[in-house]
Amino acid sequence: MKSLETPEENLAKAEKNIEDAAKKGAQIICLSELFLTPYFCQTKDDRFFALAEKIPGPTTQALGEIAKKNNAVIICSIYEKANKKFYNTAVVIDADGTLVGKYRKMHIPDDAENDYDEAYYFSPGDLGFQVFQTKYAKVGPMICFDQWFPEGARITASKGAEILFYPTAVGWPLTPARPELNLSELNPAEHEAWQIMHRSHAIANNVFVAAVNHVGIEGSTNFWGTAIVSDPYGRIIGKASTDKEENLIVECNLDLIDQMRKDWPFLSARVIKY
Amino acid sequence: MKSLETPEENLAKAEKNIEDAAKKGAQIICLSELFLTPYFCQTKDDRFFALAEKIPGPTTQALGEIAKKNNAVIICSIYEKANKKFYNTAVVIDADGTLVGKYRKMHIPDDAENDYDEAYYFSPGDLGFQVFQTKYAKVGPMICFDQWFPEGARITASKGAEILFYPTAVGWPLTPARPELNLSELNPAEHEAWQIMHRSHAIANNVFVAAVNHVGIEGSTNFWGTAIVSDPYGRIIGKASTDKEENLIVECNLDLIDQMRKDWPFLSARVIKY
Repeated sequence: MKSLETPEENLAKAEKNIEDAAKKGAQIICLSELFLTPYFCQTKDDRFFALAEKIPGPTTQALGEIAKKNNAVIICSIYEKANKKFYNTAVVIDADGTLVGKYRKMHIPDDAENDYDEAYYFSPGDLGFQVFQTKYAKVGPMICFDQWFPEGARITASKGAEILFYPTAVGWPLTPARPELNLSELNPAEHEAWQIMHRSHAIANNVFVAAVNHVGIEGSTNFWGTAIVSDPYGRIIGKASTDKEENLIVECNLDLIDQMRKDWPFLSARVIKY
Repeated sequence: MKSLETPEENLAKAEKNIEDAAKKGAQIICLSELFLTPYFCQTKDDRFFALAEKIPGPTTQALGEIAKKNNAVIICSIYEKANKKFYNTAVVIDADGTLVGKYRKMHIPDDAENDYDEAYYFSPGDLGFQVFQTKYAKVGPMICFDQWFPEGARITASKGAEILFYPTAVGWPLTPARPELNLSELNPAEHEAWQIMHRSHAIANNVFVAAVNHVGIEGSTNFWGTAIVSDPYGRIIGKASTDKEENLIVECNLDLIDQMRKDWPFLSARVIKY
């Protein structure tokens, strides 16, 4: 999705997209990171703290109804306020509308130079990595920056996740952080590296991996879209546009996990004492 | 390298290749896994235990002289016998001929079905992951199956490695492990997945990664060669043939590590309490 201005508009847009995807057979639907607003962490502005809400709260209530109506699991990230602290939180809502759990983003980019100034807005997650059984699969939600770290994928898969989901907001800066950087060389390298990391989590853990990103220019960032789904061999089995909105629907044959774990049992073969 | 029959022949061939590479400017030279013999772990045969030797021992002695003569660091894997135990051991020999250290393979494939029956021949490494300062760079040696596990790359890079080296023996089985497997579909998927893992270690840890593999048919395996070097952005900056012997020489600009760590400081940003 490309974000509209207000939470109300984005929730309505998400509902329409969810209905569209569910009609085409989607069972587990993931939205991009902080889908209710344009990505607001490019600058420090204390007005944005007012966007935070309780979970369960108005947004999970609305999404519960949408999930139930469409018989679809919904995964997304919401700006959460809890006990006077603020988190970037992924929620998993089952196909009957039940909020089955939440995950609070562990890896918080503290990168003002590249306009990911998230340490100002979010405390690091305190719930650990999480796995939730839903109607269609056991899912492990993480969020954006987590996707660069093999640890989160490893722990989440070890807890039994069949599909890792990463609601995401990542893109190219419109101007380089430092003058010596050549964006025409770096931008494609970063875009490819991002996909390599997803594929590597799939391979190393014999799971499916899905990421869903903002698309288009918001503020100082050109979000690169490219929602991507990898199978356990790291093959890209679905990829969305880099510059247009798109509802990407991908079939995941979970039996492939069993097949692969016979030949490459990485989760059991790994050495856990170093 | 494609292995010849005897250790003597392979050592002589390695020496010739090292001289050739050094003449062309190679500073750190990595040989394939257990380069002294064809890959013998496809079957259980107790005759092969006699191949094991002490480290330091005759092979590291010979390699020390070759390293000094060529002013090149040498990294390779040797079948080691120590304290009545057997290990698959990587050695790092500095450009002055000094044996600077060894690493014993931690992840031992116990996979008779696919003809990697290594648990019969090797105890798991007991030295932990290791980093060694050499004349030209700080190197982290691991071995083959280790390359599928993000943990080893992470720990080795965290200890300061600038380049990870994986002497390797991996290929396609000539016959599938199970009749339901379609090798014409699986073989390219596995070959690509292997490269993805190397590239992901490079990205996740902001380091260079090099792997050097056997090539050609040895016993029941078609080793896929494809020696590969990735830069810290996961870009493949050198790749050798899948079916021919080749001395691959690749220039690594270590300053790229500093550049990348300013924008993507994954080693410092990672959450280490889960």
